[in-house]
Amino acid sequence: MELITSNKNEKIKNLQALLKLKKERDRQGFFVIEGLRIFKDTLETAPECIESIFVSESFSSSSAMDEIKDKLLKSEISSEYEKILAVKDNVFENISQTVTPQGIMCTVKKPYYSVKNIIGKKILLLENIQDPGNLGTMLRTAEAAGVSGIIMSRDCADIFSPKVVRSTMGSIFRMPFVYCENFYAAIEELKGYGITVYAAYLHGGVPYQEITYSEKAAILIGNEGNGLSREAVELADKRIYIPMAGKIESLNAAIAAAILMYHV
Amino acid sequence: MELITSNKNEKIKNLQALLKLKKERDRQGFFVIEGLRIFKDTLETAPECIESIFVSESFSSSSAMDEIKDKLLKSEISSEYEKILAVKDNVFENISQTVTPQGIMCTVKKPYYSVKNIIGKKILLLENIQDPGNLGTMLRTAEAAGVSGIIMSRDCADIFSPKVVRSTMGSIFRMPFVYCENFYAAIEELKGYGITVYAAYLHGGVPYQEITYSEKAAILIGNEGNGLSREAVELADKRIYIPMAGKIESLNAAIAAAILMYHV
Repeated sequence: MELITSNKNEKIKNLQALLKLKKERDRQGFFVIEGLRIFKDTLETAPECIESIFVSESFSSSSAMDEIKDKLLKSEISSEYEKILAVKDNVFENISQTVTPQGIMCTVKKPYYSVKNIIGKKILLLENIQDPGNLGTMLRTAEAAGVSGIIMSRDCADIFSPKVVRSTMGSIFRMPFVYCENFYAAIEELKGYGITVYAAYLHGGVPYQEITYSEKAAILIGNEGNGLSREAVELADKRIYIPMAGKIESLNAAIAAAILMYHV
Repeated sequence: MELITSNKNEKIKNLQALLKLKKERDRQGFFVIEGLRIFKDTLETAPECIESIFVSESFSSSSAMDEIKDKLLKSEISSEYEKILAVKDNVFENISQTVTPQGIMCTVKKPYYSVKNIIGKKILLLENIQDPGNLGTMLRTAEAAGVSGIIMSRDCADIFSPKVVRSTMGSIFRMPFVYCENFYAAIEELKGYGITVYAAYLHGGVPYQEITYSEKAAILIGNEGNGLSREAVELADKRIYIPMAGKIESLNAAIAAAILMYHV
């Protein structure tokens, strides 16, 4: 196994670019996962997407490494040992995005979905969600709530940034999602499929518990600070809100989405 | 108005200690809030708790500053101008906990509550919650869901750490909470008041939507990674769980708490 000893190694420089720059992730069509658990998840769900596996020198002599080699041998991407690259511990720690690095990172091909993959009985529509942690948590909760897919406006945070990837806990490979150039057209398209669009909106709607939802429903959630755009709200079939006691002005967007996804 | 120009100023050193060290917050009985919105919240909800107000030099000549002086004049803590300390911009930025500092920080007396303040129809019980963001979000959601108070085990994250304070969005002054030396005894005590304790627990319970909750209910939520301790689960009256589709093993603790608080 090759041992990378310098930060200036071309592969390490590319790994850093993929971690840091959306532009590079977009251009290359790859992103980075870090940690043993999500690596195993990927190996199970999307082994064909794995490109290069970077392990720290300490990790490379651990029992976890033997287990991975075993799994690689049995997987479809069978034993391409050249995929594994060992990296000196200090170089690995330097690029790691976590406080206590587990010693494994991996470049992975981005999954692509079309609106067709997403159409189902329960859809999540996200407009301009900015917080990476919120976005990742929404993906994870959507999978748990049985959502069929997520449609996002172009200006949502990048799902392939390290922080989002981490907070999805593996859902990134299982929950179909698309970014739409024209978000409003996508809402119209859904309505064309007979899906009722419910906008989470504080003004002029009904409390979410008080209505009966149609068989095919999409929940529309807006930006953390500013909520939904007027255009999006006007395109929706119904406006619903989550009643709030005390002096709370709004709920965290991931919390609001969770309450609605589980209720609908 | 006094102008602080050095990081080594005693008041600045103390501010930093309160921001960074739980030990100091515990010893002094004070914590720090940062940002204009939470400052205004505090001025409205708990003006008597405000100790010193630190503003950056730029902030001190802004219109927001005039507004604050106005409000201070009208508030109960009336015009104690010596409470306001101006700090050189670079010194302020250096201690700020945010990426783009708004220019206002304030030391505030910790609010104290007893179990009596907390008893009500809907209580949240938290065991060993470690993530500051989760804890803050739970406080905020609890207020919105009409929870009467929160009881925490001693080993939960410190509610007065800057990250929790920020994510509560002001609920820290409105939602009563206590840390219990003996968490199990507190659960027993609640049961003594005729409150039914529901443990969020994946094994051997019923789906949360399928039962009728008693008039006085407490929801028991455990650690992000390990869930509830066996002792806590055994003390609860009932076990409930949130059904999860896909391959999700667990929900984020703040998400699970939100779904249950809003449902019960």
